[in-house]
Amino acid sequence: MQTLTVSLGERSYPILIGTGLLRSRELLAPQLSGRNAVLISNTVVAPLYAQLLKHSLEGQRVLEVILPDGEQHKTLATASRVFDVLIANRIGRDAVVLALGGGVVGDLAGFVAACYQRGVDLVQIPTTLLAHVDSSVGGKTAVNHPGGKNMIGAFHQPRAVIADTDLLQTLPDRELRAGLAEVIKYGLICDPIFFDWIEANVDALLARSAQALSHAIYRSCQIKAQIVARDEREHGERALLNLGHTFGHAIESATGYVDWQHGEAVGTGMLIAAEMSQRLGNLDPSVVGRLRALLQRAGLPVAAPRIGAARAFDYMSVDKKVHAGRVRLVLLTGLGRAVVTSDYPDAALRDTLAAHFG
Amino acid sequence: MQTLTVSLGERSYPILIGTGLLRSRELLAPQLSGRNAVLISNTVVAPLYAQLLKHSLEGQRVLEVILPDGEQHKTLATASRVFDVLIANRIGRDAVVLALGGGVVGDLAGFVAACYQRGVDLVQIPTTLLAHVDSSVGGKTAVNHPGGKNMIGAFHQPRAVIADTDLLQTLPDRELRAGLAEVIKYGLICDPIFFDWIEANVDALLARSAQALSHAIYRSCQIKAQIVARDEREHGERALLNLGHTFGHAIESATGYVDWQHGEAVGTGMLIAAEMSQRLGNLDPSVVGRLRALLQRAGLPVAAPRIGAARAFDYMSVDKKVHAGRVRLVLLTGLGRAVVTSDYPDAALRDTLAAHFG
Repeated sequence: MQTLTVSLGERSYPILIGTGLLRSRELLAPQLSGRNAVLISNTVVAPLYAQLLKHSLEGQRVLEVILPDGEQHKTLATASRVFDVLIANRIGRDAVVLALGGGVVGDLAGFVAACYQRGVDLVQIPTTLLAHVDSSVGGKTAVNHPGGKNMIGAFHQPRAVIADTDLLQTLPDRELRAGLAEVIKYGLICDPIFFDWIEANVDALLARSAQALSHAIYRSCQIKAQIVARDEREHGERALLNLGHTFGHAIESATGYVDWQHGEAVGTGMLIAAEMSQRLGNLDPSVVGRLRALLQRAGLPVAAPRIGAARAFDYMSVDKKVHAGRVRLVLLTGLGRAVVTSDYPDAALRDTLAAHFG
Repeated sequence: MQTLTVSLGERSYPILIGTGLLRSRELLAPQLSGRNAVLISNTVVAPLYAQLLKHSLEGQRVLEVILPDGEQHKTLATASRVFDVLIANRIGRDAVVLALGGGVVGDLAGFVAACYQRGVDLVQIPTTLLAHVDSSVGGKTAVNHPGGKNMIGAFHQPRAVIADTDLLQTLPDRELRAGLAEVIKYGLICDPIFFDWIEANVDALLARSAQALSHAIYRSCQIKAQIVARDEREHGERALLNLGHTFGHAIESATGYVDWQHGEAVGTGMLIAAEMSQRLGNLDPSVVGRLRALLQRAGLPVAAPRIGAARAFDYMSVDKKVHAGRVRLVLLTGLGRAVVTSDYPDAALRDTLAAHFG
């Protein structure tokens, strides 16, 4: 087991990465110490792992809340139903929410933990690669609104992240691939050596080599933990982690959060951001080519749906990254170098959107 | 104008107390500096003061969101409708929410500001005495759930509190009286000299003497600011501010948040807490007598509705103050001395509830 720390003063917490963690009573018991546990999961993950987790919590009272699967259920209405269950079961402020699932479960359970009685403890137990490397770490929680992704949410840091790589063995291929998009992101924004490593190991990652997955998760979480520690509330640097997300949000919004996985949309969004960076003369075409090739080798889509540039812009401009009326973008200035900017020619964005969204 | 500061490091903010503040462009403009303003108010307050406030914000784009009046609308459903309006109007993360109203508006607008795009700026402009002395200060925001008051919420400190005492001149008598319950609370929990002062000035306060109101607001906010600065998230001392609230919540819950004003319920709740403290031998009967007399002089109810002890206990035990299965209570050990405790004989609580709720 490897341990990383997200350093946030009295809200610091460990990320535990390794195999067999969910079977470890010694590891889980201290997170609960006799308090009410609320296990929030979904209809796909719960049958696979809820029993194992509860077994490791031996004797602990555990309230299970099982959500329907899918991003379309990450809504205020679903959160409201979870609040109903917690209140009906008289769950108190000293409870611990265990979020067992991927990004959707983690975001929604995290939001519930953030708001229930103005905040209860949260432990993230990610079951997808995307959640291992991104959404379970850093305290962002949210639900979607028909008008935009993650529009309603809170910053609420977990007490611990338990990243058991065994859980990735049952992950559908498509979700594994989607998670790789976020891994690639860390290389793109700040670590060219890690990008090289992903290129060299993408086949091992797709074959679910425990060693390759462990390294990818460790290095991704390490980068994210450092950035979050420096800029918890995204006043600056943390926004770099949104590379590909604003273009990606347009894809997800236009397709109702159903057809595209989040990681898939981010992957294509990163490619669009890279091509816009090239268009502005800030990025060598060879980097765009390497990114496209890597996404393709990872089995990720590289073409956005033809929803029309105007509609794409519309969705982007209700995204949270709008500042003083302009859409803020994360663009690349090299492999491993990214900037957050709203200072770009409108024509460059227009042309980029026309090229990709039609 | 008098200024107090709530000292919370980089989240510190001023409480401005005085007359004519809502007319002061110099005071209001710096809070906005060109950003989108979202004015959240209700159907009673908006016709009285929204125009004045907008006039002082000259030229600023202001989106108005007017809520129905009343605690029964402080729900997740109402918050959800406000989110819809913000998103439909493409309000960005750089917006400022101006909460113009009493405790209900402040709590709901505060919760919306806390969660919209994971948090936007908030300025509290209280229009009731209760909001002046209590709910606008300290960052507690929430909505109610049918199963309990303030069960869904967040800590979200405002950027400023603008307490314009002129606004209290239009306040209905009943609401003025309800606010006095919270003023009395500050004397009870930590300042016997202030309690004496309230006894000596209750008639001036009811006659809306600007001088008396100003002093009551200043001293109340000063006490609250000090406690919040030491214990923002209510891990300890801040819970003293809940004197009367747990008994009061039972009253409000049982009557559907409609018949009783919050302050009225708190007033009666404080008397119940005082009588339980006396029952335990911790409080001199003369203090209970003085409190009862003061509440009566302030025109506040001193008898709880006869909802039955069992039902009252039921409502109390879904309140947020439950810890490890026991209801935590704020009890008095003297005039100006309070403790938070779950260490009391069950019989004392049972007898107290039977005496007051039947």
